[in-house]
Amino acid sequence: METSYAQRMSAMKPSTIREMLKLTERPGVISFAGGLPAPELFPVEDIRAAAERVLGECGAKAFQYGASEGIAPLRTRIAEEMKTRQIGCMADDVLITTGSQQGLDLLGKVFLDPGDVILTETPTYLAAIQAFQCFEASFQPVVTDDEGVIPEAVDALAAAGRVRFLYVIPNFQNPTGRTLSLVRRRQLAEIAARRNLLIVEDDPYGRLRYRGEHLPPIKSFDEGGHVIYLSTFSKTVAPGFRTGWIVASPAVRDKLVIAKQAADLHTSSFDQLVLDRYLADFDNAAHVRRVCAAYGERYAAMDAALRRHMPASFSWTQPEGGMFLWVRGPESFDSMHVLGEAIAEGVAFVPGADFFPRGGGGNNMRLNFSNAGIEAIEDGITRLAAICARSAQ
Amino acid sequence: METSYAQRMSAMKPSTIREMLKLTERPGVISFAGGLPAPELFPVEDIRAAAERVLGECGAKAFQYGASEGIAPLRTRIAEEMKTRQIGCMADDVLITTGSQQGLDLLGKVFLDPGDVILTETPTYLAAIQAFQCFEASFQPVVTDDEGVIPEAVDALAAAGRVRFLYVIPNFQNPTGRTLSLVRRRQLAEIAARRNLLIVEDDPYGRLRYRGEHLPPIKSFDEGGHVIYLSTFSKTVAPGFRTGWIVASPAVRDKLVIAKQAADLHTSSFDQLVLDRYLADFDNAAHVRRVCAAYGERYAAMDAALRRHMPASFSWTQPEGGMFLWVRGPESFDSMHVLGEAIAEGVAFVPGADFFPRGGGGNNMRLNFSNAGIEAIEDGITRLAAICARSAQ
Repeated sequence: METSYAQRMSAMKPSTIREMLKLTERPGVISFAGGLPAPELFPVEDIRAAAERVLGECGAKAFQYGASEGIAPLRTRIAEEMKTRQIGCMADDVLITTGSQQGLDLLGKVFLDPGDVILTETPTYLAAIQAFQCFEASFQPVVTDDEGVIPEAVDALAAAGRVRFLYVIPNFQNPTGRTLSLVRRRQLAEIAARRNLLIVEDDPYGRLRYRGEHLPPIKSFDEGGHVIYLSTFSKTVAPGFRTGWIVASPAVRDKLVIAKQAADLHTSSFDQLVLDRYLADFDNAAHVRRVCAAYGERYAAMDAALRRHMPASFSWTQPEGGMFLWVRGPESFDSMHVLGEAIAEGVAFVPGADFFPRGGGGNNMRLNFSNAGIEAIEDGITRLAAICARSAQ
Repeated sequence: METSYAQRMSAMKPSTIREMLKLTERPGVISFAGGLPAPELFPVEDIRAAAERVLGECGAKAFQYGASEGIAPLRTRIAEEMKTRQIGCMADDVLITTGSQQGLDLLGKVFLDPGDVILTETPTYLAAIQAFQCFEASFQPVVTDDEGVIPEAVDALAAAGRVRFLYVIPNFQNPTGRTLSLVRRRQLAEIAARRNLLIVEDDPYGRLRYRGEHLPPIKSFDEGGHVIYLSTFSKTVAPGFRTGWIVASPAVRDKLVIAKQAADLHTSSFDQLVLDRYLADFDNAAHVRRVCAAYGERYAAMDAALRRHMPASFSWTQPEGGMFLWVRGPESFDSMHVLGEAIAEGVAFVPGADFFPRGGGGNNMRLNFSNAGIEAIEDGITRLAAICARSAQ
């Protein structure tokens, strides 16, 4: 037993992202490291009005204990929103979580035993690795290309051995910005049904599409309850509320509710009420369009700066939405090694190796383009490109 | 591995408290079941003023991602508050949690492997059992009397075998309302140091003392970092914010922060800021005195009604604070059996068996006296006593 405990403690080391976020607080550092939305775009005035209405109308109810599932009006509103994403569900199918991160934690609690195998994209989201590592899961990266994870590879791995679930971020993936193609979404749903494979579909960024058309989620093709869908208000309203949700089949949802109750009883009553009131009284769709327009401009600025300044041996993804792009250097490039120099010169990013649970990927960098303004992006990429050019010499 | 998963799922069954809370929503039911504070006492006007100041002054910062440890001013304020509880600590030693319930969950993540033994009072807090059961811990109840858990019994169990930690609620314990005596607090701290035993000291109710003097926490006698102290704003301000904290040694706190990051990144930025502003600008100590006065009156009303109406074969505890008292019936009394009848007659409680992780205790009932008003308490106890009298015949 000591061994298991020691292993877990060893796995639970402070993350690079976490240390990065501390560095971004230093004045003068242009940070492409964090996954922060643009705070100047938060609908602060509308949230303030919604909060004042809740404070004036709900009284003590806003501050009492509540149901673990979340407040009924917000669950109903989310079920309606799910229909616009082509997912048919009822309010009862929705569990409110303390951010999408808690959704990952609850899934770990319900499904994972030590040694259980999780299939992931290559690379995959760092904080999902951390959430699942708490339960001593092991990770099997699946071959992935510019259209996302390759279904045939998922099928072969699911056939070859016992797999607890496939974890996938279909839209503007973290860290690569890649989007899973429509045909592959259908294929994954078909494999899930045929192999009785569970899919965890994590969709925090899907609404942040600044070009192209929305694609239906894998969950929209799920007829047998094999897909668990996670989303959040962190990117469409604001992350500080720590409010997300899970849509799952009744059997899975019942287990998640019990795990949720043990984890924190319920998500903040006040935050849920303020969010619900904001969504009822203000035009969130218009707000999301403004966010998309701004992020699209920032992406374009970063892409243009990279084209102007980066050495020819570097390439990067062309995301159609979200908050991140992914830069690949030559094989000899060591992004972790370069990071110290970058910070000394006032620019930060997340080294790619952190997103590969089984190692490798050290020649990549994740760049966030949602948080810094256009001028800072131009300035920061200029600095970063100079360092990359020196390093690649 | 399937076995472990199946066992955990079997352990994670919906709690009686949870089903009870649903019943209390039915009109006409007088509920002594939930652990709800009195909402009419919440400082709603002061919270409203604090929230408006935060909304006016903090802007977007109130809604951005934050540090997993919590916001610095609130951690500093809690460290100051800890000094009034005779616990010397710095802001760095404080981790903000999404309610005290999350503190229990994080401790489970960091410390528990399947089969690990936890020592508990007899009986103990239901939701702590649930939190630790998620990690497949096993429970060793320790002999407990009216002065709390018996230190010699803890010492003997710690000597006899490997124990992960002792879990104890020293003040106005849930479910019994008992308080651990001063001498036993010293003794437990001494045993912890001598046996290298970890103690988890859960103190949600300590400020709710309506008679007698505050006793120093076990943590105040801890020189070697063996005691982890948990508390919350749920009872002194309002539970809907889901904001509590843990004070632990630096080595433990570092592990807890990593577990916290994986669990939900951080507690709501907005809620933390509003709480901090409320505590800065308003007289929370005076508010707590008003709450204590009201709970003392409600306790006295319940005690008086029990004396008037309950059969002679029933006895109950005499708590000096908190929210619960504990009624013991004759050995033949089956509180779970009686519950259905009680609900049919419009009164609810929690059957005692739920608080005994290894069975027994079915002749007890937990009664909450903080939520219902004086008249409802008199009315509800009259109904309940009539049912008990019939049942005990």
